[in-house]
Amino acid sequence: MNRRMIGYMIGEITVLEGILLVLPLLVSLCYWEETSIMAFSIMVLLTLAAGFAIIMLCKPQNKVIYAREGFVIVTFAWIIMSAIGCVPFVISGEIPNVFDAFFETVSGFTTTGASILTDVESMSRGMLFWRSFTHWLGGMGVLVLIMAIIPKDSATDSGRAMHILRAEMAGPIIGKLVPKAKDTAKILYIIYFGLTVLEFFFLVMGDMPFYDSVVHAIGTAGTGGFGIKADSLAGYSPYSQWVITIFMLLFGINFNLFYLILLRRFKSFFSNRELWCYGGIVVVAVAVITWNVFSLYGNFSDAFRHSCFQVAGIISSTGYSSVDFNLWPQLSKNILFLLMFIGGCAGSTAGGLKVSRVMLLFKLIQKDVRRLLHPRSVAAVKLEGKTIDNNTLYGVSTYFALYMALILGTFLLISFEPLSFETNLSAAVSCVNNIGPGFGQAGPMEGYAAYSNFSKVVLSIAMRLGRLESYPVLLALYPRTWTKK
Amino acid sequence: MNRRMIGYMIGEITVLEGILLVLPLLVSLCYWEETSIMAFSIMVLLTLAAGFAIIMLCKPQNKVIYAREGFVIVTFAWIIMSAIGCVPFVISGEIPNVFDAFFETVSGFTTTGASILTDVESMSRGMLFWRSFTHWLGGMGVLVLIMAIIPKDSATDSGRAMHILRAEMAGPIIGKLVPKAKDTAKILYIIYFGLTVLEFFFLVMGDMPFYDSVVHAIGTAGTGGFGIKADSLAGYSPYSQWVITIFMLLFGINFNLFYLILLRRFKSFFSNRELWCYGGIVVVAVAVITWNVFSLYGNFSDAFRHSCFQVAGIISSTGYSSVDFNLWPQLSKNILFLLMFIGGCAGSTAGGLKVSRVMLLFKLIQKDVRRLLHPRSVAAVKLEGKTIDNNTLYGVSTYFALYMALILGTFLLISFEPLSFETNLSAAVSCVNNIGPGFGQAGPMEGYAAYSNFSKVVLSIAMRLGRLESYPVLLALYPRTWTKK
Repeated sequence: MNRRMIGYMIGEITVLEGILLVLPLLVSLCYWEETSIMAFSIMVLLTLAAGFAIIMLCKPQNKVIYAREGFVIVTFAWIIMSAIGCVPFVISGEIPNVFDAFFETVSGFTTTGASILTDVESMSRGMLFWRSFTHWLGGMGVLVLIMAIIPKDSATDSGRAMHILRAEMAGPIIGKLVPKAKDTAKILYIIYFGLTVLEFFFLVMGDMPFYDSVVHAIGTAGTGGFGIKADSLAGYSPYSQWVITIFMLLFGINFNLFYLILLRRFKSFFSNRELWCYGGIVVVAVAVITWNVFSLYGNFSDAFRHSCFQVAGIISSTGYSSVDFNLWPQLSKNILFLLMFIGGCAGSTAGGLKVSRVMLLFKLIQKDVRRLLHPRSVAAVKLEGKTIDNNTLYGVSTYFALYMALILGTFLLISFEPLSFETNLSAAVSCVNNIGPGFGQAGPMEGYAAYSNFSKVVLSIAMRLGRLESYPVLLALYPRTWTKK
Repeated sequence: MNRRMIGYMIGEITVLEGILLVLPLLVSLCYWEETSIMAFSIMVLLTLAAGFAIIMLCKPQNKVIYAREGFVIVTFAWIIMSAIGCVPFVISGEIPNVFDAFFETVSGFTTTGASILTDVESMSRGMLFWRSFTHWLGGMGVLVLIMAIIPKDSATDSGRAMHILRAEMAGPIIGKLVPKAKDTAKILYIIYFGLTVLEFFFLVMGDMPFYDSVVHAIGTAGTGGFGIKADSLAGYSPYSQWVITIFMLLFGINFNLFYLILLRRFKSFFSNRELWCYGGIVVVAVAVITWNVFSLYGNFSDAFRHSCFQVAGIISSTGYSSVDFNLWPQLSKNILFLLMFIGGCAGSTAGGLKVSRVMLLFKLIQKDVRRLLHPRSVAAVKLEGKTIDNNTLYGVSTYFALYMALILGTFLLISFEPLSFETNLSAAVSCVNNIGPGFGQAGPMEGYAAYSNFSKVVLSIAMRLGRLESYPVLLALYPRTWTKK
């Protein structure tokens, strides 16, 4: 275990967060919000100082790291980012309770978007920007950002880079776009940034104010879902809602596919099975829900728009809403509930199980049924034309068991709350899958304010485990990870 | 595919059911219930005639069968048993709707105990006996019964026997108690019969009437749960409730362990890990629920008795209740909800995932976490001191995915009902795990009468798939099963 190197990278992350906190400081300066200016100024200075101090203290002789260090760094990075990130909310007095502020920040960095705020519109613009900016940072991952921007000689020994990319990014198989992990990280961030700017452009071209467009563009990009209005996106024009619907769906697509488009390899783009499957699920869900909610709106165009928006919001794990879907008929709500489990494509910023995992699970079941008939047959399982090796394949089904255990465990721990079955189960599913709203008292217009501090901590851990797909955190807690080789 | 042999065995099953229908006929005669006497007399004659006709028509030249025939026979056997078994309810006019009668019979044979009856106390004693007797038959399996009783030369070619035992019995690993499958089946039925008689004896020694004791003993033995009172077991004495609690727990234990006791191998009995795990889950659940419901009853003894009864009722998948647990605090209800998934031990008459499967899933997760640290390590997973081979091991996690897909699919299909989220989800979980009552409008004092015919068919199929652990039915539907080798 290369502990000095872990400390060194934690230092780098702290410095990076100090630099990133300059952005909300600038926003606060623009709107001249004095408490926010004070809060962010203090934090920038303290965080930078602490970060450089850690780097000085932990200067490693040996920069080689292995998988185990990668997992530990990823786990600690998230905890430290959230611990630092919640301080501005507390010292500005805008979210005075530390548990609330921590929950909100974890919800931000994990791109969940579950909120404990009961009056979001009274918050300062600087704080609201920082809150949504955590989505954007969490979406592609802070460590991927470090990999992309820190000069080659110090931070991208190829071994180190890939271990971190694997630990931080979601999905059953992580492919490199280009031979070097550092370049992969760069390309991913360029696509990410480009799409975010594009969405901002479309929003601001419509009737959405400049500030609102920025916040919603970064909130969509990270598939987060923090809004700035009490009724989420319900108050904006149909045009803005359509733009957000389309971008929510886009950010649920594997980023490798956008790279294929940049390379003009359209054929490869359209032959992607996961994409078709993702699209198919969206189309079927929208069709059934539109039919089911038609009578609520009385016209096709509203019913279709709201069902598109809600389906896109849930399957991409963003969690914005254009309507209180908690009031929808049970069938539509239950479809949304099932979409929460599926999530977006692997290699996107979305949460959930991921479409490719669901596909592999069905292929595994098919394989096992076949094996019962022909016990000696060895049928290979393929995805996107490639044979999936057994370790990856069975890793998927084991991960599914871990994932369900995480959901049911979270549900059990928050059952101490006197809230309904629907509220608690949907809250657990929503937080583990990084969606945001649930049903009942955790619905899109309600939030998580009703939960106790204990449950907020439980849900924060659940969001974190869900985001990192559990393994890095479990490994960091595993005693043997820490023993010397 | 040996189709004649499949037909031949279906004939045997039909004849057996004709003979078994004599029992409720005798009960009807004892209480001189005229419509029931007529209904059962007609069915005995028709079923026997049809059964012998099928046997004559399908006399096979070749009695060898393989795994595929085993799965098909098991699937068809269940469908035919239920189709015949529901006729008496319909022709006697006691359950006039065919969908209701079919649901009730499937619920009986699958040992679920979910009921569509709104006024169970108005039913005749003959019909109520037949209803509960289907639990007893379904508990150990009708094909296992055939194997145990039909003379050796015609029905127990060793190949045939084992394939059926495996297809019909639940759990990840099916062991033979003795070298011959036929003898294993016999021993299992002797233990089953003995325990049932023992329970009857304890009940009738208390203050429960003779008829009630018979019905509840067979209902407990099959871990079924059909009662004869509107409030299930709530109206009986604490003594009777304790007897039933203990026997519900006993019927959730692997029958192989009872055989060890008969052989006086107490050490092997007590070193069984699954048993300890099962006991541990029960103790923890009872402790938390007793604490949680204490204020409802005001005294320890009632709170403790009701929590023991409900925990035993749910984990053994019996579904009897001594109280309307639907009115309990959310925490207690949610614990019961999680127990629904776990179920009893493998090789018992209980439903659910089975404790040993849950143990293997956790071991698999542990193994995968370890492999991330040491990619080349090959750690064996052990259960009860034996190494579990990879096919069995990954079969468990694939089965888990299939099982969850079954639950969520059932939930989606019954979502067309205008019932609450809690009602529909708990109904789906309860039916797939063969428990019986759910929560909300499907609670222990309510039943399934509110569901439409469509949902009743969906839930019947779900109970069937849950009971057979899906694979036999999936295989019977798989086209290649039917093609000649």
